[in-house]
Amino acid sequence: MEQKNKKLSTQSYKGARDFYPEDMRARNYIFETWKKVCRKYGFDEYDFPILEPYEIFAAKTGEEIVKDQLYSFEDKGGRKLAIRPELTPGTVRMIAQKYKELVQPIKWFMIGNNWRFEKPQLGRGREFYQLEVNIFGEKSVAADFEIFSIIIDVMTAFGAKKEQFALLLSDRRLISALLSNALKLSEEMQAKVRRLMDKRSKMEKEEFLASLKELGINPEQCRKVEAFMNCSLESISSIIPPEILNENDGYKSIKELFEMLNASGLGDYCRFDPSIIRGFDYSDGLVYEVFDKNPKNSR
Amino acid sequence: MEQKNKKLSTQSYKGARDFYPEDMRARNYIFETWKKVCRKYGFDEYDFPILEPYEIFAAKTGEEIVKDQLYSFEDKGGRKLAIRPELTPGTVRMIAQKYKELVQPIKWFMIGNNWRFEKPQLGRGREFYQLEVNIFGEKSVAADFEIFSIIIDVMTAFGAKKEQFALLLSDRRLISALLSNALKLSEEMQAKVRRLMDKRSKMEKEEFLASLKELGINPEQCRKVEAFMNCSLESISSIIPPEILNENDGYKSIKELFEMLNASGLGDYCRFDPSIIRGFDYSDGLVYEVFDKNPKNSR
Repeated sequence: MEQKNKKLSTQSYKGARDFYPEDMRARNYIFETWKKVCRKYGFDEYDFPILEPYEIFAAKTGEEIVKDQLYSFEDKGGRKLAIRPELTPGTVRMIAQKYKELVQPIKWFMIGNNWRFEKPQLGRGREFYQLEVNIFGEKSVAADFEIFSIIIDVMTAFGAKKEQFALLLSDRRLISALLSNALKLSEEMQAKVRRLMDKRSKMEKEEFLASLKELGINPEQCRKVEAFMNCSLESISSIIPPEILNENDGYKSIKELFEMLNASGLGDYCRFDPSIIRGFDYSDGLVYEVFDKNPKNSR
Repeated sequence: MEQKNKKLSTQSYKGARDFYPEDMRARNYIFETWKKVCRKYGFDEYDFPILEPYEIFAAKTGEEIVKDQLYSFEDKGGRKLAIRPELTPGTVRMIAQKYKELVQPIKWFMIGNNWRFEKPQLGRGREFYQLEVNIFGEKSVAADFEIFSIIIDVMTAFGAKKEQFALLLSDRRLISALLSNALKLSEEMQAKVRRLMDKRSKMEKEEFLASLKELGINPEQCRKVEAFMNCSLESISSIIPPEILNENDGYKSIKELFEMLNASGLGDYCRFDPSIIRGFDYSDGLVYEVFDKNPKNSR
């Protein structure tokens, strides 16, 4: 009887969100703007289930997310399932299933929600919505240029001005050039240093250098890693020898990309920033983030 | 090593579905048509998370679904969660949270996906999408009439003709009038008989009567239950005495509703059918289903 009389809570699960009509109108406006821009560039919409076999994430997603943040469980038939924490593995699964039948380049976008078990905080819930835009089957820098155009187009469609945001970019192959070719670190050590570099923006310089030292990196190497993270595309050759740099595909792509961006007038929105790493292990080329320049919105 | 070499399956979870661009276009067309009709009638769109506290379903949803078909698990903080198997409990939760602030009548619609663990079969997956349309805070039959208009409008927007479908309707209060007032069954017995009536369409007449008898229903009562399930709005008074019938709110609503439907030309799409019960225990008034008349699509 006590159970029956207990009043049911009307709250949604903490970190998830109800959309009352007023909020839904705002969400629809955002999603419709995303769709409009993507369609303008000839991208096709797709979708896949929020529940996926667990193995898909175990293989593809960053360690921290799988270990600590993944919502996973067994269905009543004993199959291990997970609720997606990001949209990339499912996208890759779909592409892999029909790769030979699909006309290339494959230009696809989807809007989907994801779940991660983490402490809800300002602007970051356990459930979040994401626009995923991909080009498959096109290796040239033109594909990256097209994605950048879409990103900038989306931002300006919402009224954002050049002064308000920047597209920061780097390349994982450039980080390899530093850690592997220039500093000659072992693969294991590279992964550790890369993980630390990814957390650099949340650390003081001293703390960062001390952590590098703790890993067993010598002072000269530490100085180079720190200098790398603050260098420009022009000053990078003082850290990575030109004979390594000029053979590096990451360096070549970024230079080519900036030529295209500058020629089309989009260069002003973009900035080389070697502190951009991205957490996922599957990233192996260009990496980038949109950065809100307003100091009030810093993360 | 064996684990690492095993090729990842590219299949989605059984009973769920990938939407390649071609299928996504069809889905978008269906959803856009739904939205257009709902907005034409002044309904507002809303949404809520697919993950909800488990208790919400334990309290509201039909027994079979909670026991056998609900995807439920604990999060990493020990909270018991469920993936929604239907959209009504979450909708009621949201309405309850802000009932006093919301301008009434509240006319809301949402499009959402649900999950039920059952054997996937033709036209029925473990994941399915649903249009939920509700009016809250309006007790008159005008609200039901508006919902019926939307349903018929949606069907005809997809090109369905009068000859192809019917909106079958009954009222739970009419079933109560039979089981409680006319047959004087106990509440427990009413629930059992109602559950059996809900399965009637999937049974032979003999099987149905034998099952009723097994519950302890006498032959005269059995005959009346069977006759009720096949009666028309005109012949129902031969089963339920007029003095009960004329005081019954279900009977009164259906008569009033048919007057409105006939006056507006929608009566031809609708048919009284007392075999319509609906499985959920929370249904307590009008119940209805859209029926595909094509014998090839019978369930």
